[in-house]
Amino acid sequence: MNIITISREFGSGGREIGRRLADILGYTYYDREIEISIAERMNMDVDYVAHAMDQEMLMNIPLHFGRTFGDSYAMKQQVDILVEKQRFLKEIASASHCVIVGRAADVILSEFHPFKMFIYADMEHKIKRCQKYAKEEENLSPREMKKMIRKVDSRRFQYHRMFLNTDWGDKNQYHLCVNTTGVNIKSIVPILADYSSAWFRNSKPE
Amino acid sequence: MNIITISREFGSGGREIGRRLADILGYTYYDREIEISIAERMNMDVDYVAHAMDQEMLMNIPLHFGRTFGDSYAMKQQVDILVEKQRFLKEIASASHCVIVGRAADVILSEFHPFKMFIYADMEHKIKRCQKYAKEEENLSPREMKKMIRKVDSRRFQYHRMFLNTDWGDKNQYHLCVNTTGVNIKSIVPILADYSSAWFRNSKPE
Repeated sequence: MNIITISREFGSGGREIGRRLADILGYTYYDREIEISIAERMNMDVDYVAHAMDQEMLMNIPLHFGRTFGDSYAMKQQVDILVEKQRFLKEIASASHCVIVGRAADVILSEFHPFKMFIYADMEHKIKRCQKYAKEEENLSPREMKKMIRKVDSRRFQYHRMFLNTDWGDKNQYHLCVNTTGVNIKSIVPILADYSSAWFRNSKPE
Repeated sequence: MNIITISREFGSGGREIGRRLADILGYTYYDREIEISIAERMNMDVDYVAHAMDQEMLMNIPLHFGRTFGDSYAMKQQVDILVEKQRFLKEIASASHCVIVGRAADVILSEFHPFKMFIYADMEHKIKRCQKYAKEEENLSPREMKKMIRKVDSRRFQYHRMFLNTDWGDKNQYHLCVNTTGVNIKSIVPILADYSSAWFRNSKPE
């Protein structure tokens, strides 16, 4: 199977690239679908699962070790969700060609030799993009936007460092790094589709 | 004019990408041509010019400040060559669409809004590539190769830090970063040509 993983800075347009790429290539697209499926399987609330998969919550785990484990049930649930996430990712990677956005799929699925992309952009561009796509009730100032973008990305970085022993965002972890600053995403996705197809034809180990 | 600059790790195939890209796009290709032209203009030996443009020689300049300037003539020549290099790069950037490999052209020509690529690869891949293309007399062991690759790239990094105040190899400095590990360069260059054309159509400021 051809697996494309898309890691991305918050606000860089990685999700849009992923969706359009899957459309063009006829691959299955996974993003929020991952939490929904896991919630169904585990008979849990999807928001709870999303929250449990959220890096911030996970990062607190080490703080609990050596304590009294007052809420060890919630912790066990979190670990169960993580285990299920890994199982689910490996299932979908075996089922069909697919594009997976985020979820550390690039690391978790490394044995499947995915084509790994990283999408990034200048801060100013990311703030503009976030403002363009923000819901009305999320009326953040550029300064608050910037703070949020930094926070999300810093969490991603720390999560990869702590749990996966990799440097999120380090170009050496990826096959292609695309700067979307000032770029018309719609116009480049067909080219990225060509690039990934060429990569699968020539570079993927058997 | 459309200017493509190619920065590259030693042994990653950046030069081959540059040459093929220029061929496909019908752009002028500049690499060693730069030293040759400067040598002609300044009526100097091309190897001397290449050596003077070499980062290692330049890096020693700060060591000389505050000394007796025993060899200030040679130092003045070096500075003259650098000035001429900047002038020459700006001339060629104004003359025709072109691909320029290295020479810090991405920074020196920033006012021309070049499409900036960075080419890199895993160390093992770079060593293999260097061994494949090495002249017979340069019979280095993989260990020596590795040392040389590190040395050249570290010089590039330090040069950019000291003289251009930029982080060479930091993905944020570039529009597209291409990992050539295990990649068939011939098969991806037409796609990179498409990508740069799309970038010039949509992203280049007027």
